[in-house]
Amino acid sequence: MAVSEFTLIERYFRDCGAKRSDVRLGIGDDAALLECPPDAELVATVDTLVAGVHFPEGSPAASIGHRALAVNLSDLGAMGARPAWALLSLTLPAADEAWLGEFASGFTALALAHSVALVGGNTTAGPLCISVQLLGHVPRGGALLRSGGKPGHIVFVSGTPGDSTAGLALEQGRLSATGDAAKYLRERFLFPTPRVALGERLREFASACIDVSDGLLGDAGKLAQASGCGVDIEFDSVPVSDALVEAVGDTTAHTLALTGGEDYELCFTAHPDAIARLRREMPPEQWGYRRIGVLVATPGARVLAGDASVMDFSHSGFRHFDP
Amino acid sequence: MAVSEFTLIERYFRDCGAKRSDVRLGIGDDAALLECPPDAELVATVDTLVAGVHFPEGSPAASIGHRALAVNLSDLGAMGARPAWALLSLTLPAADEAWLGEFASGFTALALAHSVALVGGNTTAGPLCISVQLLGHVPRGGALLRSGGKPGHIVFVSGTPGDSTAGLALEQGRLSATGDAAKYLRERFLFPTPRVALGERLREFASACIDVSDGLLGDAGKLAQASGCGVDIEFDSVPVSDALVEAVGDTTAHTLALTGGEDYELCFTAHPDAIARLRREMPPEQWGYRRIGVLVATPGARVLAGDASVMDFSHSGFRHFDP
Repeated sequence: MAVSEFTLIERYFRDCGAKRSDVRLGIGDDAALLECPPDAELVATVDTLVAGVHFPEGSPAASIGHRALAVNLSDLGAMGARPAWALLSLTLPAADEAWLGEFASGFTALALAHSVALVGGNTTAGPLCISVQLLGHVPRGGALLRSGGKPGHIVFVSGTPGDSTAGLALEQGRLSATGDAAKYLRERFLFPTPRVALGERLREFASACIDVSDGLLGDAGKLAQASGCGVDIEFDSVPVSDALVEAVGDTTAHTLALTGGEDYELCFTAHPDAIARLRREMPPEQWGYRRIGVLVATPGARVLAGDASVMDFSHSGFRHFDP
Repeated sequence: MAVSEFTLIERYFRDCGAKRSDVRLGIGDDAALLECPPDAELVATVDTLVAGVHFPEGSPAASIGHRALAVNLSDLGAMGARPAWALLSLTLPAADEAWLGEFASGFTALALAHSVALVGGNTTAGPLCISVQLLGHVPRGGALLRSGGKPGHIVFVSGTPGDSTAGLALEQGRLSATGDAAKYLRERFLFPTPRVALGERLREFASACIDVSDGLLGDAGKLAQASGCGVDIEFDSVPVSDALVEAVGDTTAHTLALTGGEDYELCFTAHPDAIARLRREMPPEQWGYRRIGVLVATPGARVLAGDASVMDFSHSGFRHFDP
């Protein structure tokens, strides 16, 4: 039996996410009413996931719900912002209640983990497409920007990029691996961990920050460009997981880490003088980040081999409309 | 030649919309940074247009750009809010530059008219689907809600609902009409006028408000339900345009006005004691609204004929997943 749009939204999304006292009015009117904290700037982002583009057709609904929010949490993390309110626009081919229930559970679990309230949204019939708008805030003037880096600043990345892209390849049957490594990599694609706490804490130390969604090399290049710099990344310094190395070998692992995409890690820079305090107050082994290179005056993003020669990486990021 | 996602966004959307001094950081970083006015509540809404659902395949791109923003402006109008910042999520099958240019021009013209800045967005390959998130603000505690009505409050509607639905039928060849009437009706569908100024001004007079997007009868019913009331609408009081009457006749015109949808007019209520001042300070002929009925204690939405008998309207609103 088909159910109406209104009933759908009502049933699955009214109690989705965290309860927050700064939500004056949530789902149910023409728009949400929200209370911004004083002395804060509002931070706003939107990201869309399309079936067959951002996830394989037939992906688990819980993963789609998780990822739709995670990609936006990652954007706010990269600004050093604290997430607060989400709006969800869900286009789906049919009112499949089992699918909706799983989608909502994946979305809700992550929303609760980050105290995000779902305050609005709409549901439409059409090809599967999920758009999430995420709002949050940051102390006035305190946001991390892409543009704050300078030549000489050290470049770091969190986590182990490349895992997600290998996980996707496993999901799609383009890569074969078994056991715990395969399971781990799949999980990294299906349920990425946005680095929100890391981003918020980095406001104290980082000079610039970007989230790694289109491939580390491409995104580090975007940070460098926004900062009026170039970036040199040391191939051997790029962190890779044991699972990724087990699945694809060491060299391919590093290559995927640089070019994969969908990692939702943070790439950030810090002034050399800030590094000692950064390492002391935010121990890398606890916060999970690693030095991978340095900003330089020469424009462009380069990868350097062990002998300091420039390596060729022609594929630097995922571009939807590229030939 | 295909162009990259980044170039697309850069070219068509970087200078889209109004320049606002409260935009600390617009498109180009991981998220936008915005300055909320003090003593205001943030108002947030999202709406999605899907090809073949909300507009016919092959609709003019300028109309799609206009409507994608208009539907959200209408939501903010219904809250009595002032729009400020938009984020655009655009999924389109191919990087058609002519289409993008027209879409952007339709979006921009309306954004400029309402001083809305485009502060973020993303472009994705996929089936044509446009999601716009609109943010604005309203003096704290001053928003118009659906829930403020009481039995005895008078019900009004702006404009001439039904025109848009007839315009859509003309676009789709399901209705035939010619001349100025047809041209006018088509325009009402392609380029609806969100009643933002009306909504903002109504904060002083209205007890409740909703935007008419799913059909006047259904939306008046939703306002009544949110207010814990029912609503009686007088069939003959529902305003209809001369063009609509010319195209479909008087009775069908009134029926379409009650059930059509996509009108983006405002349906609002006011306490009987406020009516005289409302009419004096906001003359109906200037602001374009008309009394159509009254809130009552009995739940439900009814349409009354001239002899006060209840008319049968089984189709009360556009529900995407209804059988």
